[in-house]
Amino acid sequence: MNHPLELVVILGTAREGNQSSKVVPGIVDAAADRDWKTTVIEVSDHPQSATDTHAGDDPFRSQMATADAFVIIAPEYNHSFPGELKMLLDRQQGEFAHKPVGLVGVSAGGHGGIRAVEGLLPVLYTLRAVSVLPQVLIGGVHELEDPFSVERHARQLGAMFGELEFYAEALRAARS
Amino acid sequence: MNHPLELVVILGTAREGNQSSKVVPGIVDAAADRDWKTTVIEVSDHPQSATDTHAGDDPFRSQMATADAFVIIAPEYNHSFPGELKMLLDRQQGEFAHKPVGLVGVSAGGHGGIRAVEGLLPVLYTLRAVSVLPQVLIGGVHELEDPFSVERHARQLGAMFGELEFYAEALRAARS
Amino acid sequence: MNHPLELVVILGTAREGNQSSKVVPGIVDAAADRDWKTTVIEVSDHPQSATDTHAGDDPFRSQMATADAFVIIAPEYNHSFPGELKMLLDRQQGEFAHKPVGLVGVSAGGHGGIRAVEGLLPVLYTLRAVSVLPQVLIGGVHELEDPFSVERHARQLGAMFGELEFYAEALRAARS
Amino acid sequence: MNHPLELVVILGTAREGNQSSKVVPGIVDAAADRDWKTTVIEVSDHPQSATDTHAGDDPFRSQMATADAFVIIAPEYNHSFPGELKMLLDRQQGEFAHKPVGLVGVSAGGHGGIRAVEGLLPVLYTLRAVSVLPQVLIGGVHELEDPFSVERHARQLGAMFGELEFYAEALRAARS
Repeated sequence: MNHPLELVVILGTAREGNQSSKVVPGIVDAAADRDWKTTVIEVSDHPQSATDTHAGDDPFRSQMATADAFVIIAPEYNHSFPGELKMLLDRQQGEFAHKPVGLVGVSAGGHGGIRAVEGLLPVLYTLRAVSVLPQVLIGGVHELEDPFSVERHARQLGAMFGELEFYAEALRAARS
Repeated sequence: MNHPLELVVILGTAREGNQSSKVVPGIVDAAADRDWKTTVIEVSDHPQSATDTHAGDDPFRSQMATADAFVIIAPEYNHSFPGELKMLLDRQQGEFAHKPVGLVGVSAGGHGGIRAVEGLLPVLYTLRAVSVLPQVLIGGVHELEDPFSVERHARQLGAMFGELEFYAEALRAARS
Repeated sequence: MNHPLELVVILGTAREGNQSSKVVPGIVDAAADRDWKTTVIEVSDHPQSATDTHAGDDPFRSQMATADAFVIIAPEYNHSFPGELKMLLDRQQGEFAHKPVGLVGVSAGGHGGIRAVEGLLPVLYTLRAVSVLPQVLIGGVHELEDPFSVERHARQLGAMFGELEFYAEALRAARS
Repeated sequence: MNHPLELVVILGTAREGNQSSKVVPGIVDAAADRDWKTTVIEVSDHPQSATDTHAGDDPFRSQMATADAFVIIAPEYNHSFPGELKMLLDRQQGEFAHKPVGLVGVSAGGHGGIRAVEGLLPVLYTLRAVSVLPQVLIGGVHELEDPFSVERHARQLGAMFGELEFYAEALRAARS
């Protein structure tokens, strides 16, 4: 492969004062270290108050379509994912198919959004994406300035990126 | 119990042209037959594009608080529930606790939204609600003018209302 | 209510050397403190290698039938519950209906079996049981001699028992 | 690829008189049509009454290890998969990693085991397998002699095999 892998990072909450945005820079940096081309899609830049599978302008469609891999950041609200993230995912028109997705859970409490990311599994399965393990689970996010200064989080992220790369390369070749 | 049970019916989609709204009248009628007092909350009347647990005006709060039982109508989008429904549920401030919830799934295909309602189970568990069985599962909704003209749907609804009543009465007494 | 509540505690693993059995005494003691009558059912005393809904001798049936509440102890194996626990639950013939169930997750790692107990939610819903919150989540079980010597676990157990009692009393009255 | 793909078909129930075994021949035939090498593993040939990750003789280990793809047949018992299937899956020691899995749900009722296969998604995710879509969902199995004489089932199976092949070839190359 000569051209770099393209990664789309989806910040899956638009809640005012959310802590999940803290997680973005560390992911973007790690992708840059691997020479991946990264685009960040923030749900708050694509506001919707009703499911609409046709929503999405040309840049959005194009970023989704050319992505080789995705990372979804999902805080846990009431043991599941944010509604605004689901509406964004429901805009898809096949762009996730045969592509890997890494999952980053975020929570104020100790379990790091484990149920938010588990709740995404059937959705991503339906979109024909490949959810990769390990997950990155970031608990106690309010206490952290840079979540990836915690060694465990950095290690999980590295392992997740390894899996994303494995699938992104294998499947990019197979899709073409 | 001398005062009637109060039922809140939540229409869980704001998608333009949605078919789920067809389901509402049959549920309201069935509740009237039992002399329950019914309020319908349509997600589209409470638009949000970001999770906000403090959203909701006084009438909304009051309807939720005085409800003895809920019915949630959820179409299935990509094997899960609509995002706008999740945002509405995430507004709750304890109003579901110790109250029964009946689930009505809706789909264009044959399985009647079975995965939308299954996806709600962990959410409702977290809200300390009691999800009752049977569910009402309405498949092929585009073909139906009145979904409850189908005998199976009417029978499921009757059985679901029986369970709602069982729990609503038992728990109203225990809550007070 | 003059007669004591009857609690059935199900130890949901038969794995050799399992750590979940450590959790049983603390639960039995807490039930005794409340003057509940407690029976412990260990999956290993009811071995099956195939699902059989008719399995179960008279004492088993009788214990299940007269229970007012259940506590299920479930370690997490591969992000879900043990197979032998599922076979035991599949023996049921309606004995869980309209009764509360408390969930105790156990794991070697940090998340305390959170996904084992989440995986039980749709099963218990189908059995028409009421899954109560809070759960007790016991992580790092290998390090603990008495899991309830940890203050957080003891507090979770106390709150769970409060909910079990609320539902057991409300529903016992309503069932009769 | 010069050597044929190796498929392992897991019959995921040992229940006496189960209907799921009817599904096996059609899958084996379809694999033969594609010149895949197929092995059938029946849970009933590997009886366990307790989770044991070390169970499994050499032929079992070898079949699992050399598989390029899996098909799991899972009837739905109480809205989830059979316990004996879970015990078999919990024997794995990494053999599912980076391999595709097709899911065949079976039920007496109309929904074709949809919740049994959904329940497997988090388990297969944890085993680092790739669950492929479409599923094959066989409802009303008692009425069918050959489930694949129903055109819809045959079509789902064909599409599932197409996906299995896509991933099996892409990932076999990448694993080596």
